[in-house]
Amino acid sequence: MQNIYKQNLDKNTANFTPLSPLTFIERTAYIYPQRTAVIHGQRRYTWLETFTRARCLASALVAHGIVEGDTVAAMLNNTPEMVECHFGVPVTGAVLHAFNTRLDAETVAFMLEHGEARVLITDREYSATVKKALAKVQRPILIIDVDDPEYSGAGERLGSIDYEQFLAGGDPDYPWQGPDDEWNAISLNYTSGTTGNPKGVVYHHRGVYLNALSNIVSWGMEPHSVYLWTLPMFHCNGWCFVWTMAANAGTNVCLRRVDAKLIFDAIREHGVTHYCGAPIVHSLMANAPPALRAGITQKLSGLIAAAPPPEAVIEQMANIGVDLTHVYGLTETYGPAAVCAKHGDWADQPLARQVELNARQGVRYHAQEAITVLDPSDMQPVPWDGETMGEIMFRGNLVMKGYLKNQKATEESFAGGWYHTGDLAVMNPDGYVKIKDRSKDVIISGGENISSIEVEDVLYRHPAVIAAAVVATPDEKWGEVPCAFLELREGATVSEEEIIEFCRQNMARFKVPKRVIFNPLPRTSTGKIQKYVLRQQANSTAAISSS
Amino acid sequence: MQNIYKQNLDKNTANFTPLSPLTFIERTAYIYPQRTAVIHGQRRYTWLETFTRARCLASALVAHGIVEGDTVAAMLNNTPEMVECHFGVPVTGAVLHAFNTRLDAETVAFMLEHGEARVLITDREYSATVKKALAKVQRPILIIDVDDPEYSGAGERLGSIDYEQFLAGGDPDYPWQGPDDEWNAISLNYTSGTTGNPKGVVYHHRGVYLNALSNIVSWGMEPHSVYLWTLPMFHCNGWCFVWTMAANAGTNVCLRRVDAKLIFDAIREHGVTHYCGAPIVHSLMANAPPALRAGITQKLSGLIAAAPPPEAVIEQMANIGVDLTHVYGLTETYGPAAVCAKHGDWADQPLARQVELNARQGVRYHAQEAITVLDPSDMQPVPWDGETMGEIMFRGNLVMKGYLKNQKATEESFAGGWYHTGDLAVMNPDGYVKIKDRSKDVIISGGENISSIEVEDVLYRHPAVIAAAVVATPDEKWGEVPCAFLELREGATVSEEEIIEFCRQNMARFKVPKRVIFNPLPRTSTGKIQKYVLRQQANSTAAISSS
Repeated sequence: MQNIYKQNLDKNTANFTPLSPLTFIERTAYIYPQRTAVIHGQRRYTWLETFTRARCLASALVAHGIVEGDTVAAMLNNTPEMVECHFGVPVTGAVLHAFNTRLDAETVAFMLEHGEARVLITDREYSATVKKALAKVQRPILIIDVDDPEYSGAGERLGSIDYEQFLAGGDPDYPWQGPDDEWNAISLNYTSGTTGNPKGVVYHHRGVYLNALSNIVSWGMEPHSVYLWTLPMFHCNGWCFVWTMAANAGTNVCLRRVDAKLIFDAIREHGVTHYCGAPIVHSLMANAPPALRAGITQKLSGLIAAAPPPEAVIEQMANIGVDLTHVYGLTETYGPAAVCAKHGDWADQPLARQVELNARQGVRYHAQEAITVLDPSDMQPVPWDGETMGEIMFRGNLVMKGYLKNQKATEESFAGGWYHTGDLAVMNPDGYVKIKDRSKDVIISGGENISSIEVEDVLYRHPAVIAAAVVATPDEKWGEVPCAFLELREGATVSEEEIIEFCRQNMARFKVPKRVIFNPLPRTSTGKIQKYVLRQQANSTAAISSS
Repeated sequence: MQNIYKQNLDKNTANFTPLSPLTFIERTAYIYPQRTAVIHGQRRYTWLETFTRARCLASALVAHGIVEGDTVAAMLNNTPEMVECHFGVPVTGAVLHAFNTRLDAETVAFMLEHGEARVLITDREYSATVKKALAKVQRPILIIDVDDPEYSGAGERLGSIDYEQFLAGGDPDYPWQGPDDEWNAISLNYTSGTTGNPKGVVYHHRGVYLNALSNIVSWGMEPHSVYLWTLPMFHCNGWCFVWTMAANAGTNVCLRRVDAKLIFDAIREHGVTHYCGAPIVHSLMANAPPALRAGITQKLSGLIAAAPPPEAVIEQMANIGVDLTHVYGLTETYGPAAVCAKHGDWADQPLARQVELNARQGVRYHAQEAITVLDPSDMQPVPWDGETMGEIMFRGNLVMKGYLKNQKATEESFAGGWYHTGDLAVMNPDGYVKIKDRSKDVIISGGENISSIEVEDVLYRHPAVIAAAVVATPDEKWGEVPCAFLELREGATVSEEEIIEFCRQNMARFKVPKRVIFNPLPRTSTGKIQKYVLRQQANSTAAISSS
């Protein structure tokens, strides 16, 4: 029997458009041209202005030869330029590669090479790092300098053209056209994974579109929200909130740096309603002098993400009246792809229990198909007993295209038809996922991923070191910090301070171990270092002190 | 140059899932199994129960031989069974054809044949019509009777199996699996268009998924809303709100019939926050005795749609404190695909101006790519002057697959890469669309579409009638009603009452002209009846009285 619903009912330009978040800014600039899109210090841009600046950026990039599939990199803070890049770059068909501004020159150079950037838009603040990185890069890169009036510190211009000049050469009527395929790449975000070399996570227009809407629906964001940029836009494109705010027709309140006074001043002055961040951001807010919070009367909603589970922070934020929601995800899942969806009756529980319930990684986002906990050896679900460990796996439209130029890692991560997070967890009897440990050697410090192997690689380069293992140790401020365990060559001597100084000279500051312990490393019979033993040690101050 | 973002970054089961609203009920039943999904009279179903009943329905349909591409029809009121059909039917791959319960037997028979229904789930209330219709149908149809405890009127069971019995034979663990292609059909909705024969509008999973989320985002619906079913679920699948409420994890409050007391009692008792309807529903509410509204304190938001622009109703609802939003769309656009998006500064305008602003058809929905006003002769946009008339056209993912088994009508409606609505409008200087007239001969009465040509066809069958033209005339209660202009055969005489009675015997009651005017019909030089002249006449009571 023929299916009558498949006859002469095909796609055409009237009834099918590839999904793309580029449509959101066009819609909002059309409907609310005069609403404020971006606030940054003394600068204000309406949605029409931000849209027009994005069009100028796009046309200027095209005039400089940028075509579909090219990479345009940005080393920027949370500034209006960064917002504009999220629209002006992909509308040309190019892919936005937003750099973590905290990276060292060597890593930046690696990423510029690997990501094949043809353009780099860079803030003067990072000129020292970028200059060093560019010296190591063989390919020609057009450098566009951003000189933000809100930044008065050191740093020079590196390129031949300034961002504002570049835009001035652009066409404000550049045709706004989405991709011809919603599977086309929109952005590139590098992540520190299990290996020392960062992997380039590729997002597509479809996934970003869906996660931008999911952020609204899953969080229950009302239209015209005022969003404070405490989360770096270079983290998973600000968990897709750069695009969410365009769909929401809201206002982006920029912040160059996270500082309690700046945060509360912005919340008060601009009527901020929403913000996101790693635990350290919330912790900073909770622990700020109460006087800083004076005069703030609006409802404030925050999203919190990062392992380990920030129970203490959740409790602190409840104490200062912020409505905190815990989300979970990875660079590979467009940022948040799970949410600890609240239940009305949780409010009847004692606070400690509420905190425990809210600290779980939770359930899938609206646009994600599934989150589950499987035994990776046979891909069977673990029992919902809150005790049996397995690996968190995701499936659905909020999973990356894959890793750029890394077929092996892509295939491994998608083995068995699920994205393997590397996070070890249990499934609670109510179907909520709760992380217990991580199988990958990643340390999350202040919201930043640190590859333990990358740190180990540096330690191994020290002449006194014969074996090194780096694990996470809990830290009140940063969530986790790297803790190094070292075996020294026979007869060699070196102090903790010397090792730390050595690391400072060879890696980004946030990756430097805060503790160094000289100790024979525990090994399996096959010689593999038993990191779980070291983690136990690192977790126990007593053990560390006595070691 | 090769595009590095298109190499080894393909779709797989981990990172791609076809969009489908079936995922929403699964998610909500998983996260909130005990939340109330459906309230109907004394009946209550949790989301787990509704989901389980949908699974039983699906497995029982499959056991009866239903396969992908089959049609399952429903002649149902706004009852729990109707909610369940919206999930249990499409999960089998079948297509839900929800009947307008107000149709006459002949039209029902036509649709059962044309839509090739293999199953009909029918409420006892409509057994007289359905029985007559089935007598005209040649194909075997499995009849499943719904005997709603909330209905105590006349009507018999027609089939061999009752809905509850049918479900009891189903499998509550039926595997919940979305479509393998998001372009697959999910539902069939007939519309009265320019021709007498209704056209079968086909929706796909992708469009429904996107409009279900758009309803939330465009309206700013908070999670766990309580939605009152004043809008029939058979109208564009309740403007996709059956699926929206699953995504929202909210509560469906059913209503078998629209009645002011029932409405306000439900709002009060169940804490209703949202509802939709044609102008007549809102008008009924606004004009109800104020005592009926006593004790209702929650914020109530309503969506209103239908032409002609219901300015008076918008004003009335503002007066009783309902937050009314005007949306616009057609059966072909999944219901609402445009919204009169509000601006904060409108509130500073005098009420009459506010009403005027809010009565416009507005701008595109989030998930719709475009709404515009074009000159259909050259497909060029009209100037944004609020005066130049053109035709409203839509483009994007909220446009139907096409008309079932009607390639010609499908192609015509998509001519030039836009969906032609047939509605004549102007574009205001702020980019908001405002309907001025309709080019298609459709009369919208109490939210129901009436094809004027269909009514004319009946009138032409009357022995005394030599020419007939039916147009809309404004009506305080129904918005519009059909008004018939007739030329009689030489020597023939017939009264208005006789014509009306003749119509009653040959069409659904709501289609019967409320006025009949005997008058030579104005014609163009080529002999075409000048309906716009008749509309002017019909719009003017004075003209009618003197004619």
